[in-house]
Amino acid sequence: MQENRCVVLASRPQGAPAVHNFRLESRQIPPLQAGQILCRNLYISLDAGFRNWMDEGSGDNVLPAMPLNEPVMGLTLGRVEESRHQDFKAGDILMARFAWEEFTVTDAGDFISPIRQADYPLNYYLGVLGDTGLSAYFGLTDHGQVTPGETVLVSAAAGAVGSIAGQIAKLHGARTVGISSGEEKCRRLISELGYDAAVDRTAADLALAMADACPQGIDVYFDNVGGPILETVLDQINEDARILLCGSVATYNQQQPEPGPNNLFQLTTKHAHMHGFMTHLNLDRYDEARATMARWISEGHLVVHEHRLQGIENTGQAFCDLFAGINFGKTIVEL
Amino acid sequence: MQENRCVVLASRPQGAPAVHNFRLESRQIPPLQAGQILCRNLYISLDAGFRNWMDEGSGDNVLPAMPLNEPVMGLTLGRVEESRHQDFKAGDILMARFAWEEFTVTDAGDFISPIRQADYPLNYYLGVLGDTGLSAYFGLTDHGQVTPGETVLVSAAAGAVGSIAGQIAKLHGARTVGISSGEEKCRRLISELGYDAAVDRTAADLALAMADACPQGIDVYFDNVGGPILETVLDQINEDARILLCGSVATYNQQQPEPGPNNLFQLTTKHAHMHGFMTHLNLDRYDEARATMARWISEGHLVVHEHRLQGIENTGQAFCDLFAGINFGKTIVEL
Repeated sequence: MQENRCVVLASRPQGAPAVHNFRLESRQIPPLQAGQILCRNLYISLDAGFRNWMDEGSGDNVLPAMPLNEPVMGLTLGRVEESRHQDFKAGDILMARFAWEEFTVTDAGDFISPIRQADYPLNYYLGVLGDTGLSAYFGLTDHGQVTPGETVLVSAAAGAVGSIAGQIAKLHGARTVGISSGEEKCRRLISELGYDAAVDRTAADLALAMADACPQGIDVYFDNVGGPILETVLDQINEDARILLCGSVATYNQQQPEPGPNNLFQLTTKHAHMHGFMTHLNLDRYDEARATMARWISEGHLVVHEHRLQGIENTGQAFCDLFAGINFGKTIVEL
Repeated sequence: MQENRCVVLASRPQGAPAVHNFRLESRQIPPLQAGQILCRNLYISLDAGFRNWMDEGSGDNVLPAMPLNEPVMGLTLGRVEESRHQDFKAGDILMARFAWEEFTVTDAGDFISPIRQADYPLNYYLGVLGDTGLSAYFGLTDHGQVTPGETVLVSAAAGAVGSIAGQIAKLHGARTVGISSGEEKCRRLISELGYDAAVDRTAADLALAMADACPQGIDVYFDNVGGPILETVLDQINEDARILLCGSVATYNQQQPEPGPNNLFQLTTKHAHMHGFMTHLNLDRYDEARATMARWISEGHLVVHEHRLQGIENTGQAFCDLFAGINFGKTIVEL
């Protein structure tokens, strides 16, 4: 029987995740039962949002809390090796919510998005054509309703979602402004990701830096970080602004929740809207969305950046990198 | 020349407004110029939101800060006495954003909603058929999208907007739950305003009281008060919930803004929406909305409650009553 190396949750992170919270193990692949598939995972996607289910009692309407000493839940891209399930056959490419492991045996009750025709490098189907790219797409398409000339501000603008959101907003004719940490990343937002302006969130006066970068005010705020930046944004939104709540990386590690913005009433006086959304609920629209995104890639309008590590043993490190802001673009591990 | 008694802003409220912040004065009515109208105000509407423009430097995209020693801005219902303006004639009934005064002379550049056909008692056009009733209507119609069986929670449920919002939600087939202060008002929410259940916001355990009253969770929250209740609500919203931000009476008097809800990420995980809205921007739809509301009144589906005071000299008191929670229904002063 082939060995299956996996990374388990060794201990629950206290605050930011650390590599010692994860442990490499080797397990046996069980024999395939009727109705099951065996999938070889080729890439693992690292997504900060999964931090939410690492705490004790953190189960919610989306996922249960991750059990200790079991493979960490995550998004994967893999190929079916063997199938005893009527909907799948050997060779199928699946984007799925499996776990940090080399092989997954499952009855396919999990969240699975088959890639019917893989015209692009497989890693794209975890990034720009995966949940993160599609988060940017659905958020902006369904709730952003960007019109040409509007100002779209993106937080974690160099991240997996943000880097795509900025480019999609630009495709809609917006003036795009990205928020990131430090001069170096801000410079790259403009030179590599096509943002019109950048805001350094470590600036001494964040409100001033934001106002300088958004002289016409903010029409759309695509929020990937949550936390205190929103308060600064709310003071600078235009009438009919739309705030898209995608991720909240600034709060996932909090042991105690921090106060929210003290100026939510700006939403009333500016008759503005705040939309939370969960990309995986649009599974039936993934093919349509991927087709549009793929066209943009082919036409050279979408540039893909990746922070890639090699080997299952580095998955924990890759996850920690997300919270240290080391990534530029989508973070994945190639197995 | 006829005397015009008015109530001016004598001093800026520190925290909650007090009667000494307002002063009765008598002024002369100036001669009517070309392009002007003279309107006799019959009723003054008291709306907590106007507290926002009583502070120094409080002007915003909606209104300028109120000047000291000038008549307090507010909504009025009056009759044109004399017109040198092409759009108005003597006898016209106007709901308008004038001031706390017996007569208004204006070039009609203000916010004015003419009542083309006054089929109902005139005071209705400041309440159920005025901005407060229409706030309930537009909020629920445009953003609430209530479906039968959903739970609609209303804060300041006995207030001018809340008392109508609860009844409109009921007309849409919702189970309605009102929040108010104290057992007596909560009892009246059910017996007089038709709410299915009530939550006493002074309860020792607000979250528990809310969960008891909303066993199926909260689908729509019509918020008239802002402040800390929202945090409790966010923990109990259902998927696809809608939060309608209408008013924020709990925060208007704050000298320093208080922290907002620490759990806004609930909007993401529940893919929920928060909508701010300003009723006066729908001026072109007032006639249509009034027709619907009027039909409901005629059919006995909308019951109107009023907290009425008499005489211009009591306008300041009536305004202060709003913040003391003394009102049940719409607060107006009859001149």
